[in-house]
Amino acid sequence: MMTSMPDSPDPPPIACPDSPAEPLPPVALTMGDPAGIGPELCLRLLAMDPGELGARPVLIGSRRLLERVAQAARLPVPDGLRIIGAETDLPPQPAAPVLVDLDSMPNLAADAAAVEPGRVCPAAGRLAAAAVEQAIRMAVAGRVQAVCTAPANKLALHAAGIGFPGHTEWFAARTGARRWCMCFHTDELIVSLVTIHVGYLEVPGLLNPERIAEVIDLTGTFARDLLGRAPRLAVLGLNPHAGEGGRFGAGEEERLVQPGIDLARRAGWQVDGPLPPDTAFIPARRLATDAYVCLYHDQGLIPLKMLAFDRAVNLTLGLPIIRTSVDHGTAFDIAWQGRAQVGSLVAAMRLAARLVCRLRNTCP
Amino acid sequence: MMTSMPDSPDPPPIACPDSPAEPLPPVALTMGDPAGIGPELCLRLLAMDPGELGARPVLIGSRRLLERVAQAARLPVPDGLRIIGAETDLPPQPAAPVLVDLDSMPNLAADAAAVEPGRVCPAAGRLAAAAVEQAIRMAVAGRVQAVCTAPANKLALHAAGIGFPGHTEWFAARTGARRWCMCFHTDELIVSLVTIHVGYLEVPGLLNPERIAEVIDLTGTFARDLLGRAPRLAVLGLNPHAGEGGRFGAGEEERLVQPGIDLARRAGWQVDGPLPPDTAFIPARRLATDAYVCLYHDQGLIPLKMLAFDRAVNLTLGLPIIRTSVDHGTAFDIAWQGRAQVGSLVAAMRLAARLVCRLRNTCP
Repeated sequence: MMTSMPDSPDPPPIACPDSPAEPLPPVALTMGDPAGIGPELCLRLLAMDPGELGARPVLIGSRRLLERVAQAARLPVPDGLRIIGAETDLPPQPAAPVLVDLDSMPNLAADAAAVEPGRVCPAAGRLAAAAVEQAIRMAVAGRVQAVCTAPANKLALHAAGIGFPGHTEWFAARTGARRWCMCFHTDELIVSLVTIHVGYLEVPGLLNPERIAEVIDLTGTFARDLLGRAPRLAVLGLNPHAGEGGRFGAGEEERLVQPGIDLARRAGWQVDGPLPPDTAFIPARRLATDAYVCLYHDQGLIPLKMLAFDRAVNLTLGLPIIRTSVDHGTAFDIAWQGRAQVGSLVAAMRLAARLVCRLRNTCP
Repeated sequence: MMTSMPDSPDPPPIACPDSPAEPLPPVALTMGDPAGIGPELCLRLLAMDPGELGARPVLIGSRRLLERVAQAARLPVPDGLRIIGAETDLPPQPAAPVLVDLDSMPNLAADAAAVEPGRVCPAAGRLAAAAVEQAIRMAVAGRVQAVCTAPANKLALHAAGIGFPGHTEWFAARTGARRWCMCFHTDELIVSLVTIHVGYLEVPGLLNPERIAEVIDLTGTFARDLLGRAPRLAVLGLNPHAGEGGRFGAGEEERLVQPGIDLARRAGWQVDGPLPPDTAFIPARRLATDAYVCLYHDQGLIPLKMLAFDRAVNLTLGLPIIRTSVDHGTAFDIAWQGRAQVGSLVAAMRLAARLVCRLRNTCP
């Protein structure tokens, strides 16, 4: 069903759409949890024209598993997929996509056969984990220029011995990042979060001026790289009406948010806030804001998902490598059925390619 | 400039658009803080065709003040405005709108001259307060069938001896309501709040199953009255992902929200939840939901204002009278300039009329 390393000569390089002189950047694509919708999304993405993606996807996954999913979901395996081992050099600029086959790793050889769609299992966790570890290694070594991740399942990862709360913390740990934050990008809205997966009551205790200034700085750097100009940033308050001058709350706006904004302003960022949260996302305000810094999960993700549920890209800012991800889960309930929508993964791959291109300074 | 009680015979009654056999309901309209945009909004609304509003507005305000605002904002005073005293019976079904003139009240006679646009002052607070008290008296006595309020200023009200946090608590106290909640209506979204103007950290301590069930009941009753069928209700969780089975938070979903939902279900309501907040307002979910119960201010008002910033109507549910309001403030910065948009007040008046009509059971 798939062909290994064909002997045919490499086709001419494909150009980056934004800078035709540059070749398309290779971007690692992890398969995600093999019991979820990740594999079929990857198959769909690999069937697309790389010119449309702005990147050469380098899929990291199990060949046998992909063949099982392709058959179950009635999806074609891309023509001429090049299959290579973990240590093999990437072929220079092929027109056909590449698969780094995890089946060739000794401890994973039996795992592809053990996975069942929609079931949490250690074999699935091991494959998902190996894909992420391999992608990080390739990115750190400069063999790919960014990583784009399909959704993983935390329970399966735990069963495979990976204890991180999510990809974000995992990438930060493996790349030694000391400052990082989670960010979401859509064409309509960019939102970074100061706190992420913590209980409602824990949020105020995790806020401090330094962390808020750090997230403003990470977000400002990202927005500046992406937009090519000084971004207009906005930070939300914590309480209704941003505290209304001390009427609501324990002065978090005055004690924590405003000093964080002041630090960021002194570092040269243009920052509005603390904004009253309820009017921060009305259309006029969105037009005047390039990127938002939100203090907690739902403050940022309610508006983001409302505007662009299936087009949002999740990024980790502050890493030494570029990392984007889909903004949805493994969808075990529809896994291997060929029904999953590839929009968010395509958006994640395109954003990764756009950032590579921007950071190369080759794009206008 | 204005005419007092003309002797001309009353024109024939105007029909309710939804039920042509019924006359248009009289709805009290309070002028709001006279130093803000309330008076000019009222003038604009009074210039509209009552048939379009579905109601006969009965403005409660100061005649002298309205004349000053009309001149400053270059707005016409409606033709044939009928001016009556606080105790005068409403004329039966006039085509022209009615003003209940507060200048006739002994302690307010000098206040209209003391008000300046954009300035907090006790005279403005006294006029705003008198309009609300008069509207409540007329509604409780059945002289009007609903009350629609223009925005007031809390500091001015405090200066005039009114200490309520807002209209909502004021109406609840004066009408003796024991169960009430704040609700927002737009054509796209209905949202009720379990807690309102309290600090972020105080929210969890104010949640309990009985209060949550009460707000579900109030919201369900309103939605059923409005839609004429059993509504599909949804309650949000407090923590990210609604706690994700205890992973985030202190079990608020299991301890507080779910038991509240269970109580409401036993009372016959169809309720989904606790929903993960970030996906509660995506388009597919909105289509499946007639009304939402949100646990705190910004959880409900970020999505509401994002969708319909200038068309939202604020209601108090649970009162023995119908009360709607604009969803914006006094806008002191543009007061008396004729620039304020009347959309939210018109929506508030129309919703009041629609509710009267529905509760009469005369509408389909």
